[in-house]
Amino acid sequence: MSLQEEFQAYRSRMNARILGSGSKVFKRLYSLDTLAYQEEGGLDKKTKELMGLCVSLAMRCDSCVKYHIEEALKAGATETEIVETFEIATVIGGTIVIPELRRAFDYLDAVMLGDGEGQEDRG
Amino acid sequence: MSLQEEFQAYRSRMNARILGSGSKVFKRLYSLDTLAYQEEGGLDKKTKELMGLCVSLAMRCDSCVKYHIEEALKAGATETEIVETFEIATVIGGTIVIPELRRAFDYLDAVMLGDGEGQEDRG
Amino acid sequence: MSLQEEFQAYRSRMNARILGSGSKVFKRLYSLDTLAYQEEGGLDKKTKELMGLCVSLAMRCDSCVKYHIEEALKAGATETEIVETFEIATVIGGTIVIPELRRAFDYLDAVMLGDGEGQEDRG
Amino acid sequence: MSLQEEFQAYRSRMNARILGSGSKVFKRLYSLDTLAYQEEGGLDKKTKELMGLCVSLAMRCDSCVKYHIEEALKAGATETEIVETFEIATVIGGTIVIPELRRAFDYLDAVMLGDGEGQEDRG
Amino acid sequence: MSLQEEFQAYRSRMNARILGSGSKVFKRLYSLDTLAYQEEGGLDKKTKELMGLCVSLAMRCDSCVKYHIEEALKAGATETEIVETFEIATVIGGTIVIPELRRAFDYLDAVMLGDGEGQEDRG
Amino acid sequence: MSLQEEFQAYRSRMNARILGSGSKVFKRLYSLDTLAYQEEGGLDKKTKELMGLCVSLAMRCDSCVKYHIEEALKAGATETEIVETFEIATVIGGTIVIPELRRAFDYLDAVMLGDGEGQEDRG
Repeated sequence: MSLQEEFQAYRSRMNARILGSGSKVFKRLYSLDTLAYQEEGGLDKKTKELMGLCVSLAMRCDSCVKYHIEEALKAGATETEIVETFEIATVIGGTIVIPELRRAFDYLDAVMLGDGEGQEDRG
Repeated sequence: MSLQEEFQAYRSRMNARILGSGSKVFKRLYSLDTLAYQEEGGLDKKTKELMGLCVSLAMRCDSCVKYHIEEALKAGATETEIVETFEIATVIGGTIVIPELRRAFDYLDAVMLGDGEGQEDRG
Repeated sequence: MSLQEEFQAYRSRMNARILGSGSKVFKRLYSLDTLAYQEEGGLDKKTKELMGLCVSLAMRCDSCVKYHIEEALKAGATETEIVETFEIATVIGGTIVIPELRRAFDYLDAVMLGDGEGQEDRG
Repeated sequence: MSLQEEFQAYRSRMNARILGSGSKVFKRLYSLDTLAYQEEGGLDKKTKELMGLCVSLAMRCDSCVKYHIEEALKAGATETEIVETFEIATVIGGTIVIPELRRAFDYLDAVMLGDGEGQEDRG
Repeated sequence: MSLQEEFQAYRSRMNARILGSGSKVFKRLYSLDTLAYQEEGGLDKKTKELMGLCVSLAMRCDSCVKYHIEEALKAGATETEIVETFEIATVIGGTIVIPELRRAFDYLDAVMLGDGEGQEDRG
Repeated sequence: MSLQEEFQAYRSRMNARILGSGSKVFKRLYSLDTLAYQEEGGLDKKTKELMGLCVSLAMRCDSCVKYHIEEALKAGATETEIVETFEIATVIGGTIVIPELRRAFDYLDAVMLGDGEGQEDRG
């Protein structure tokens, strides 16, 4: 399994575990999350996903960054748009964001180019 | 002076103080900030400002939120787009963002409607 | 109006503004928030409110701290329990929490003793 | 070694290294940490550990979450109480907490069921 | 009372309240805080205070910034050293630190020049 | 490859990727980062690196901590000075910093003693 597949498999398995726990809170939170990124008349889906990516990177949430890179690409974002999103996140969040920025570029390459040998630093 | 004017006056005065300190680091940081929000071929100005707003709200930076509300409006963002940006920030950042969300709506109203009596809670 | 009344009035007014905006996201988020603190068979209401207080203090959200102090008291928490909650939050979050701890004690006194002259430092 | 044993072994080895460094600051900090979670007349041990867990999850500290899951279980917390603690932490901290929530459920299962094959995502 | 005196008075009054609460945890935390900034054979007092200032600014704790500005000046730090400390904090923490940086310069001026009219923005 | 070499190789490779992306923002941010840590008449290089280390630890950025440990040692910092820097960061940031503190000591030992078997916990 590639790095990307491994990440997706873990995410799916554990999301099923969480939603299978019987918790109404988690069920509603997940559905609220879906709602927030839907087109509702204002921003389009791509912009919403890029926003989610921007916040995730500035707040240094590695799995969130990976997830939103995938979703932004699916919604039609170009590499240029994703890199500009990285720029804004890093300028707002400062150099402390750089380690996460390295992983973000690594994952972007893995998803876009089909490589990503999984030799990543997670620190 | 209205709440909005007071905020802008303080920001201008202290930015002048910082840039007048002779620090090359601050001079370059401010110019980097300007660069990051410029149109460079990918995202348009409005989207970049909304992203800055989204991160600012999720990370609970009150002055940053106010500043990006102003800039987003100047760049042509509608109230609907701004409120959807608030939604994404609050879903990502959780209920701990709600006090800042209250101030964000208050400032948005102040800027859009010309009111904003300054009776805000800053906690 | 006392400090406490002013805080409550602002919170109520702006919550009405947010829920009146027509946003389904905010409506559901507020109702999710209510759900999370309800008794559902495990923890009692008081413990849940004290947990909310503990996180709010450790994450330095002033309005959240005030809100959960009120709710914890309503749910029957004693001063000793609240102070022990402050202790855990401050040990986890470190000395950077101390300014917020000062405001938390100030608000606790205001609510419990009916004083709280509003001469608080918000920094 | 299971995931859980590996985590515990590393923690023990490095805590010994830190306390063996001769630093009075670390010695006192560790003893303060112990004191904060002791029963002192107000909250019981279980509640204190669940609070520590709640803050750790909301602030996305993976090792802290694992540690407090273990301690909460030792202090008699049920799975329901732990899941309700997860709920509060995630509602306060928002969807950015979800990746850590996945690991928290994974570790809870590992500790309770004796599985936990160590195939975790750390992002 | 000047801005600075008001801040100091509030801090003193509430610290007395906290230490007077009978909590052993807070008593030991305050004494641990004192210990951490004492000269113990490695770094000198001035460097330790500047470090505290740097972290406080990067983590956007307004009262902490004010406190460490005062302590750094008392320990003999020059304006140049303080401004360089501000630079490092802002580069690490990013543009989201800038509103706090404005208040930091304002307070530095208030302390060094004896002005500081208290017309500060707290957002 | 040792833990340290692996970390350095990943960092170098991805920094080259980022700077090779054509982004002016990242190019200027990296050069601003270099500028902030240069001697400019106030603080010396060693003190600046220790400050960067202190903030990195308090804000729990693992790669940043590793990087600044290396740079502080290169700039002549002693083990005592580094441990005192760890102390200040942990007291400010609280017990939530402890897992990162364990990894910081581990990496310090790896760099100073040439061991560091890579058996680290990353949680």
